[in-house]
Amino acid sequence: MGKKAIGIDLGGTAIKGAIIDEGGICGGVIRVPTEAQGGGRRIMENILSLIGRLAEGGGGPGAFIGVGIGTPGFVDSDGVILNGGANLPGWTGMQVYAPIAERFGLRSSAANDVTSVALAELMFGAGRGVKNMVCFALGTGVGGGIVTNGRLYKGSHGMAGEIGHIVVETNGEECPCGQRGCVERYASATGIVKMAAAMAKEAADGNVTELAEFVRANPGEVTSKLVYEYAAKGDALALRVHERACDMLGRAVGIVINTFSPDRVVLGGGVMMAGSVVLEAVKRYAALHCWPEIFKLCEIVPARMGEDAGVLGAGALALEEFG
Amino acid sequence: MGKKAIGIDLGGTAIKGAIIDEGGICGGVIRVPTEAQGGGRRIMENILSLIGRLAEGGGGPGAFIGVGIGTPGFVDSDGVILNGGANLPGWTGMQVYAPIAERFGLRSSAANDVTSVALAELMFGAGRGVKNMVCFALGTGVGGGIVTNGRLYKGSHGMAGEIGHIVVETNGEECPCGQRGCVERYASATGIVKMAAAMAKEAADGNVTELAEFVRANPGEVTSKLVYEYAAKGDALALRVHERACDMLGRAVGIVINTFSPDRVVLGGGVMMAGSVVLEAVKRYAALHCWPEIFKLCEIVPARMGEDAGVLGAGALALEEFG
Repeated sequence: MGKKAIGIDLGGTAIKGAIIDEGGICGGVIRVPTEAQGGGRRIMENILSLIGRLAEGGGGPGAFIGVGIGTPGFVDSDGVILNGGANLPGWTGMQVYAPIAERFGLRSSAANDVTSVALAELMFGAGRGVKNMVCFALGTGVGGGIVTNGRLYKGSHGMAGEIGHIVVETNGEECPCGQRGCVERYASATGIVKMAAAMAKEAADGNVTELAEFVRANPGEVTSKLVYEYAAKGDALALRVHERACDMLGRAVGIVINTFSPDRVVLGGGVMMAGSVVLEAVKRYAALHCWPEIFKLCEIVPARMGEDAGVLGAGALALEEFG
Repeated sequence: MGKKAIGIDLGGTAIKGAIIDEGGICGGVIRVPTEAQGGGRRIMENILSLIGRLAEGGGGPGAFIGVGIGTPGFVDSDGVILNGGANLPGWTGMQVYAPIAERFGLRSSAANDVTSVALAELMFGAGRGVKNMVCFALGTGVGGGIVTNGRLYKGSHGMAGEIGHIVVETNGEECPCGQRGCVERYASATGIVKMAAAMAKEAADGNVTELAEFVRANPGEVTSKLVYEYAAKGDALALRVHERACDMLGRAVGIVINTFSPDRVVLGGGVMMAGSVVLEAVKRYAALHCWPEIFKLCEIVPARMGEDAGVLGAGALALEEFG
């Protein structure tokens, strides 16, 4: 019988939990409210009772090798949350390993939720059989996860993988992180929307595309999905936004390939729902920002994990560490 | 008795070899001519006879756990040299593991020479006791080596660590690698000399510093060492070159810190002979190109290894892999 772990994926509105073994999710995913407004202790209590439910349904705590937790922010090596974020007030500073050990006698391994998704891709998805891999998650921001020598690379304080803040444009767009020109400013869903707004504003009045008209009339309703719908119809503004987003992402992918020489770069997150148009453009731009010899040995592929990536990645953290 | 390895450092004019154990170099370093003009087989024969000499002096091949080799270019996982470089004609494509196994019954581990130096720093120098580390070697070019989880990270095809080709300036200086704005164009000895030449040329005639005069009169005699001698005397042009080199290097260091979250970044190579002025400026600029939380957990320190870094690193390759 394969080893089993409990995976917990903490989000701003819901906590998802599941039993994970080397085949993936056993049974189904359980979803409970985070109750973030209740503060750090309330969140922890909700995590603990979800672990209890899953353990009970799976033969008791003794049937599991440990608990994996994916969380916003970072997790230091003792299991203390750093930078838990504005969506989870009171979560920063919480110690997550001790209460789980106390209540269930189980060891835990926690990491940033986006970083954990890289492990899900490694074990169950686009990274199977790969030794070295870098995942980009193109969502509201740009996050990442790095696998070296077949293991998730967490860095010295659980903080590795901030590849969304690779600077790709000198004196580029301001980023809340304090830098300018971070790839996140261009290749995230937020970045795409902002670029569309800026370009629509700048467009000379004689040269306004359908998307530009829509953006001007409904600035609050623009999404990256919408931009890509217009791009698919050949809208010139949408295509310019697309090219710029992929150029910038290609630069970051090039830096990552030159540095890590990975077998694969995996692109995931909401922006990738636009499909192969993004993948092909990023490949084209990355090739310009990379050593040809290193580039040709690296595949750039789409992520395979769907909406359960977070909980699978969380379970994978425990399978990797204690399995 | 500690484990011993044979370390071989292949350069364009000389091959250096030594017996290495966990304490460092046992006995002395032996240096023989590369005879690069003789082609790949001649180079390999010279390496083999140097291994023979070292083995004989150290109790025969059976007394060693293996051979480590640092070489220009890359080494694939089977021991075949890729991109051996113009200084070693015929070296590309050579298989290095098989003849060593055949003649001495010893296993080998080979890697890029600059990358191997990172391992020397890890085992014997500025990286002792560290799990995650990135080394920058600021020489004719900018090379690098990456340590993750206490081991040298070679990447999927021995090609990781091309951190000299991180792009730090959009549409910056052209680089032979095909990109523009690689950090190597600014922070290497070559880059520093080129910047000094360009700035001296641009300087308005009423505004010519002593260094600018020297550069204009003796363009072939400018070195990065000279630029730093003028900088130490307060020459305005030299200081501008220095600031620009360190700004650019700081950007690359920032990217590397955001990505790897290492315990330490180690700066070595000829440019670092200028001393703490470089180190302090790079720290200052890196802080601007990095997440503050990640930055404050990472030390930026000078390399400790001297001229035997290459041979120590080569031996360390074997100690790490077979020890």
